[in-house]
Amino acid sequence: MTIKRVSSTKCFDGLQQQFEHRSAVLDCRMRFAVFLPPQAEDAGDGQRFPVFYWLSGLTCTDENFSQKAGAQRAAAELGIALVIPDTSPRGEGVADDPGYDLGQGAGFYLNAIREPWKQHYRMYDYIASELPQLVEQHFPVNDRRAISGHSMGGHGALVIGLRNPERYTSISAFSPICNPIACPWGEKAFGAYLGADRQSWEEYDAATLMSRASEPLPALVSQGEEDQFLEQQLKPHALATAAEASGYPLQMEHHAGYDHSYFFIASFIEQHLRFHADFLLKH
Amino acid sequence: MTIKRVSSTKCFDGLQQQFEHRSAVLDCRMRFAVFLPPQAEDAGDGQRFPVFYWLSGLTCTDENFSQKAGAQRAAAELGIALVIPDTSPRGEGVADDPGYDLGQGAGFYLNAIREPWKQHYRMYDYIASELPQLVEQHFPVNDRRAISGHSMGGHGALVIGLRNPERYTSISAFSPICNPIACPWGEKAFGAYLGADRQSWEEYDAATLMSRASEPLPALVSQGEEDQFLEQQLKPHALATAAEASGYPLQMEHHAGYDHSYFFIASFIEQHLRFHADFLLKH
Repeated sequence: MTIKRVSSTKCFDGLQQQFEHRSAVLDCRMRFAVFLPPQAEDAGDGQRFPVFYWLSGLTCTDENFSQKAGAQRAAAELGIALVIPDTSPRGEGVADDPGYDLGQGAGFYLNAIREPWKQHYRMYDYIASELPQLVEQHFPVNDRRAISGHSMGGHGALVIGLRNPERYTSISAFSPICNPIACPWGEKAFGAYLGADRQSWEEYDAATLMSRASEPLPALVSQGEEDQFLEQQLKPHALATAAEASGYPLQMEHHAGYDHSYFFIASFIEQHLRFHADFLLKH
Repeated sequence: MTIKRVSSTKCFDGLQQQFEHRSAVLDCRMRFAVFLPPQAEDAGDGQRFPVFYWLSGLTCTDENFSQKAGAQRAAAELGIALVIPDTSPRGEGVADDPGYDLGQGAGFYLNAIREPWKQHYRMYDYIASELPQLVEQHFPVNDRRAISGHSMGGHGALVIGLRNPERYTSISAFSPICNPIACPWGEKAFGAYLGADRQSWEEYDAATLMSRASEPLPALVSQGEEDQFLEQQLKPHALATAAEASGYPLQMEHHAGYDHSYFFIASFIEQHLRFHADFLLKH
């Protein structure tokens, strides 16, 4: 697996970079961003850093979080690498839809089984397996991984973390789609990508997975109370109810006055990074 | 002078907002952004905060700095308001040019005297007089003002600060165009806006103004050494030479490895805000 660097910018004494590679899982070229903390440049041979994976929301690429969250400051201080993938397969030969909430930019972090999506739309496998393997081959990182994300990416972080507890130290999310099998965004996307069998949707539903979880990870969810998608699309109460049912140690925080934007993420990303650092950096 | 709020988002416990108003100076509608620190909401009647004015670079609007610099974190902590104007007059009736470096998005913070620019392109008066008057009328701020900016906006901050030392406590700039009368961006814009009389350009040239300054303000300039515009367009050495000639107390910092992007600004904006806070908050 080879990668090609397409940009490199110094930031908080570390390096903010973009790379392209051919994804075998997604059967197309993909771009992702990496932030390497300053310690990576100074490090002697063999020093390796844990990784915080960030999954972005609908319509985003790697650039939204890289440019707007301000995460590099705390990551630089803590000695954590950031990896920020794109939100779907991309390109001319990749199926798409005119809606912002289906197709390119809206992969929903699942493996599609229906036409015309199933050839490329396998973001679940890409995020859980192929990308970490690539990252661990090419960068000075170790196998301690945290996973987080926003909105559709919060859904992805919860689902991938809950289904792969052996692969992550901790999970977090901002404003996640907690119960996609019961909201308009999820019903549209899951119907298109997975088909009419609603029971099969449950393996991508954070609330369902959390209600059945037997190997809990530390988990933090932050939700703004003025989020315009709160009641209809995000449904944090479904996740809280699921956590209660299974005794999952979910730390759910509601923040008065905050909305769905990156201004909310910027305000609390340091808290999330410090939350994960407790587990990522534990020896 | 009335203003209309067009957005309001909570950020670091303060409020990031956008406003529109009709500018008499620019003879068009203008948008600007304001960040009010959290103390503004809690403040009793009469508590007022100092203001950090940020002037953006070519092609930018109020949104680049608002979304990418991460300045709200330190501003919230310090109790400083941020005001972020647009970079030129805008709108259908406003003269424009196909180039990114002339016309809309490229006002160069001067008062144009030539056609077709002179009706609307009066950003010098807008930033130095009309906007502060508007801001001080509508927001809980006092008359302590710092001025800063990036690239073309760094030029604007230096020029407006140097020419109005009684109006500002302190000046700073990231990657400013230090000597526009002797670089391609400046020669093109000044020629179009001001005409062929090059001597008249000097009143908008930071290096010239600093070489003649008699009422120095605290001034900080940060420049990345990997900035792609460094030698041809920015010419920080011209500013350093001017400061030496007049004994101006310029703090010029060169940062190895950094480029012209907002990743550079994000990395050092806290330092700039703390630099200004020493003067803005002095009683």
